[in-house]
Amino acid sequence: MKILPTINEPSDVKQLNILEMKKLANEIRRFLIDVTSETGGHLSSNLGVVELTLALHKCFNSPEDKIIWDVGHQAYVHKILTGRRDQMSSIRQWNGISGFPKRHESIHDCFDTGHSSTSISAGIGMAVARDLSKGEEFIIPVIGDGALTGGMAYEALNNGAHINKNFIIILNDNQMSIDRNVGGLALYLDRFRTGEFYNEVKNDIEVTLRKIPKVGNSIVKGVRGIKNGVKQLVVPGMLFEELGYTYLGPIDGHDIRQLITTFEQAKHVNGPVIIHTLTVKGKGYNPAERDPMTYHGVKPFNKRNGDFHMSVEKTKPSYSEIVGSTLTRLAKDDRKIVAVTAAMCSGTGLGSFSEQYPKRFFDVGIAEQHAVTFSAGLATQGYKPFFVVYSSFLQRAYDQVIHDVAIQRLPVVFCVDRAGIVGEDGETHQGLFDLSYLSHIPNMTVMAPKSGKELEAMLEFASTYNEGPIAIRYPKGKDDSQSLGAPIEYGQPEWIVQENNNVLLVGVGHFYSRLVQVQEKLEEEGYPCDFINLRFVNPIDAGFIEHCSKTYRRIYIFEENVKYGGVQSRIAQMLLESSQNTKYEHPRVYGIGIDNQFVTHGKITDLNHALHIDVEGLLSRVLKIERANEHGE
Amino acid sequence: MKILPTINEPSDVKQLNILEMKKLANEIRRFLIDVTSETGGHLSSNLGVVELTLALHKCFNSPEDKIIWDVGHQAYVHKILTGRRDQMSSIRQWNGISGFPKRHESIHDCFDTGHSSTSISAGIGMAVARDLSKGEEFIIPVIGDGALTGGMAYEALNNGAHINKNFIIILNDNQMSIDRNVGGLALYLDRFRTGEFYNEVKNDIEVTLRKIPKVGNSIVKGVRGIKNGVKQLVVPGMLFEELGYTYLGPIDGHDIRQLITTFEQAKHVNGPVIIHTLTVKGKGYNPAERDPMTYHGVKPFNKRNGDFHMSVEKTKPSYSEIVGSTLTRLAKDDRKIVAVTAAMCSGTGLGSFSEQYPKRFFDVGIAEQHAVTFSAGLATQGYKPFFVVYSSFLQRAYDQVIHDVAIQRLPVVFCVDRAGIVGEDGETHQGLFDLSYLSHIPNMTVMAPKSGKELEAMLEFASTYNEGPIAIRYPKGKDDSQSLGAPIEYGQPEWIVQENNNVLLVGVGHFYSRLVQVQEKLEEEGYPCDFINLRFVNPIDAGFIEHCSKTYRRIYIFEENVKYGGVQSRIAQMLLESSQNTKYEHPRVYGIGIDNQFVTHGKITDLNHALHIDVEGLLSRVLKIERANEHGE
Repeated sequence: MKILPTINEPSDVKQLNILEMKKLANEIRRFLIDVTSETGGHLSSNLGVVELTLALHKCFNSPEDKIIWDVGHQAYVHKILTGRRDQMSSIRQWNGISGFPKRHESIHDCFDTGHSSTSISAGIGMAVARDLSKGEEFIIPVIGDGALTGGMAYEALNNGAHINKNFIIILNDNQMSIDRNVGGLALYLDRFRTGEFYNEVKNDIEVTLRKIPKVGNSIVKGVRGIKNGVKQLVVPGMLFEELGYTYLGPIDGHDIRQLITTFEQAKHVNGPVIIHTLTVKGKGYNPAERDPMTYHGVKPFNKRNGDFHMSVEKTKPSYSEIVGSTLTRLAKDDRKIVAVTAAMCSGTGLGSFSEQYPKRFFDVGIAEQHAVTFSAGLATQGYKPFFVVYSSFLQRAYDQVIHDVAIQRLPVVFCVDRAGIVGEDGETHQGLFDLSYLSHIPNMTVMAPKSGKELEAMLEFASTYNEGPIAIRYPKGKDDSQSLGAPIEYGQPEWIVQENNNVLLVGVGHFYSRLVQVQEKLEEEGYPCDFINLRFVNPIDAGFIEHCSKTYRRIYIFEENVKYGGVQSRIAQMLLESSQNTKYEHPRVYGIGIDNQFVTHGKITDLNHALHIDVEGLLSRVLKIERANEHGE
Repeated sequence: MKILPTINEPSDVKQLNILEMKKLANEIRRFLIDVTSETGGHLSSNLGVVELTLALHKCFNSPEDKIIWDVGHQAYVHKILTGRRDQMSSIRQWNGISGFPKRHESIHDCFDTGHSSTSISAGIGMAVARDLSKGEEFIIPVIGDGALTGGMAYEALNNGAHINKNFIIILNDNQMSIDRNVGGLALYLDRFRTGEFYNEVKNDIEVTLRKIPKVGNSIVKGVRGIKNGVKQLVVPGMLFEELGYTYLGPIDGHDIRQLITTFEQAKHVNGPVIIHTLTVKGKGYNPAERDPMTYHGVKPFNKRNGDFHMSVEKTKPSYSEIVGSTLTRLAKDDRKIVAVTAAMCSGTGLGSFSEQYPKRFFDVGIAEQHAVTFSAGLATQGYKPFFVVYSSFLQRAYDQVIHDVAIQRLPVVFCVDRAGIVGEDGETHQGLFDLSYLSHIPNMTVMAPKSGKELEAMLEFASTYNEGPIAIRYPKGKDDSQSLGAPIEYGQPEWIVQENNNVLLVGVGHFYSRLVQVQEKLEEEGYPCDFINLRFVNPIDAGFIEHCSKTYRRIYIFEENVKYGGVQSRIAQMLLESSQNTKYEHPRVYGIGIDNQFVTHGKITDLNHALHIDVEGLLSRVLKIERANEHGE
């Protein structure tokens, strides 16, 4: 590496000629592969934007000009070029730099991203601010074709045309979100891809010319007849032009010279511009080019051949895999079961379902709002949709869950994956809100399984429950426990230890395996506790609450969720309610989970440790209180 | 009226010829004006779809065929034709029929709607279900051009093209949502409107012909040069065709014959169809045609001239008007203040702001997600956006509030209008979730004013607060009280009565004026209570909670919000926390508000009475408990 070590800020890129930039691109690719093969991270998408990022920093002046990275996991090259090269080995690690743009991390990160489809909205806001302040900076949202299927990107495009400010959207079209893109827009963009598009144009020219004599008085009719021909001819980007954008492209997103020329051209356009760049996800690294999905977000791997280091726990299935296999099994006997994903087929474990039941499997693209109401439509006709979705992405469809599902009590099942701490993706992806945003919704049942086996039982339960919607929330990663226990009974918790001790541990979902150890160690230390697995977060059984009022002096509640609006709040409220007509004193309630805060990135084990919710942390927190009470009592 | 009384179900419409249908259309218009001039309701939009609805029931067979009314406030004609004519006088009233489609109300209402842009998603779900069940029914979402600016409609269009089932979208294009539509799509659709469109076509033909000789080898370049001409010529609906839809239209949405012909044609198209109908909001009633916005949702009026009955309370401003006038005043001295609305300029009181500061006012269309992130973008550049939005519509942007605003602690102000019971619009529009979905978000300040004057003070407070986002929630309607009280201090409640009584009344927001009366009457009855106006729902002051622990035996909490996740939950949780290190017994806590349920439609006074949250209901609930305690103590 000769050039990369000399690049410490964007102005260093501006000194380079095209040849040097090409060399730098190669060095960056090697560096990206070096880093991610060691630490893991997002590989394919970053390999795809090397030239694009170089050209952006060549033509524009960050931080005055604002480059907004939609989703943001493709901002590694940007980080490398903006003074964070030497921190790249710490990326996504506890105390290291983030895998996403963060305003607090660098002046060159002008907007925090993580979820899809936000960049155009933020960019229009910045463009409006610039014009109000009579500034002259360029605003450049960089958005993938996948993110463009999200409704809010379209809301922004629509509004941006009306506001008609100067801003430059870079459409990074690689035909992929994480999975391959689907939808009308994807088909539309497909037609532009070099080769295909120009061949079509050639054919169309002939067709068009042949038709011209027919024109004259009947021109409208005649031209309408050749509509399909003509439109292919004249309208790369017509859809965007129809909406009011100047469209430039499609151009080769790996041709630095062409990128620079087009960016310079865009600077002189009045009003909003879309530059359509065609890129290859995984570009320049054979394993990733062949299989960009697998190399989208990677664990450490052998960079020579792309092989992943074998995991010793390979035999245990992940929670996601359990959902996939259970739904596939249930769908065999129940023809009403259908599965829905929003561009997360592989991540949510639905691969085998999609192969076995292609007609009952629906990948709607990055479109959570649509996914929910689409599921509601299916449910009105007697189908049983399972929408499998990450906790933090279901946030996008909060209104649809209320408005289109819960009000009508439609039996849609929400499989809420990646609930709780998810690790390296950080703030934007932690699943720490679902218990709060789901369990206050009337008619909504919310469950959390203690283990993979219990998840299976809950899915079975949900498949036969038709009184309303059910959400089942479960974590990222593998099941720690094979524990199943008593059959699921609506609204009922499951006693793990019930010996009428003074103290009760209430476990929500996957806290279970840690609590088993905590409970054992407490007993060894001379503090025997009762222990219950809550199973149902909504409803919580009133009889259980009354039992708590009567029986316990102290109740510890363990949930991976923000502090307010979840189980701690609910149980506290119910305790104070239940005691209104009794003479019992209330038990003390200790909520142990995530404080009233956002949680940064890092390995799950590191985060659990830092948040004091690993076995050690939990034990010491409970012991401290128990010992204090022992002395006080 | 001769024909209307004979129409009891859709099959009766099928018997009519075109002439009879035209007569029926006139009778229906008279009936709509009769009904809404008496009871109030949605007028303009229903006048606009009379012929459309007649033609739909002529050509399709409800309930087998599914007509899905997007938003749903334009379904009055549908209700009249499907057996509910005689119930129309009860529409939107307590115990009467709903102003929106409700599956529980009629077999002809196949999907509950209320919020915008859901119909295509639901329709695709139904179309998929039909094909899985090998059914043959038609699926017909009817969506306005306004609703088409909502992102989820686009998510659905995009996915519908991919799924490629048969379904027929009726685009009811009247250039309006509630306010006039804005955005690239609106401009696009504008070009089709009869006259304009055909004139353009005529000109374009000339331009096109003149350019043809230039073709030959340079045809691509040449044709590109005339792109704008050609595209106007050949592509009404190109945007939709690009996405994969067969486009039919534009047609006159008041021409029954043309509607029927086009619907019949659409039945034979393979794959999804969009029928573009041009309608006039308010059609057939002069006052409404002239000013469709005013007659969108009406109170009772004089049907002869359209004059509204003068309200005696005209002098008191509504909460919305207070927001509008206060922001206008603050914006004069603070050039960083900007106002944002999502298609609700008049409803949210921003009319005068928009006139006085047109460059700092933004109507982004029905696009709440974009509105929030657009505001976030503005805030990153030092501006202070006030996004004024109805409580139930902000649900659409829950993720953006977390992801784009709260994580970055951006000082966006959310003015949450129509919080609490809103009355006649019912389940889908009640603002009963905002305290739950906002107050668990870290970094988010949530306030609720007791009066219009306090709202003004809170807006002033928010205009100078830059530590993070603030939400201020306030109700529909007029301010009952001119009370202001002590200056706003961050996180601090306001004591109304503090005499160290045994009992505390905690008022959240606009419950205040009722509680003043309740407190007085309790005192008269010999039950003196302390009384506090909470002001801040997040954060709630820990000192206040500790004081509660020490001082009170019973605490009554009054909030217009669903039972869980709001103030009752929060105070219960904080009380049990605060007492962990004290010897105090807990006070009993009684949450008085909306139970764990959705709330139907009716006048606010009727609903308050039914829910026992009017003065009488509140008083009797508190008295009952106080008396029981007196005997028990």
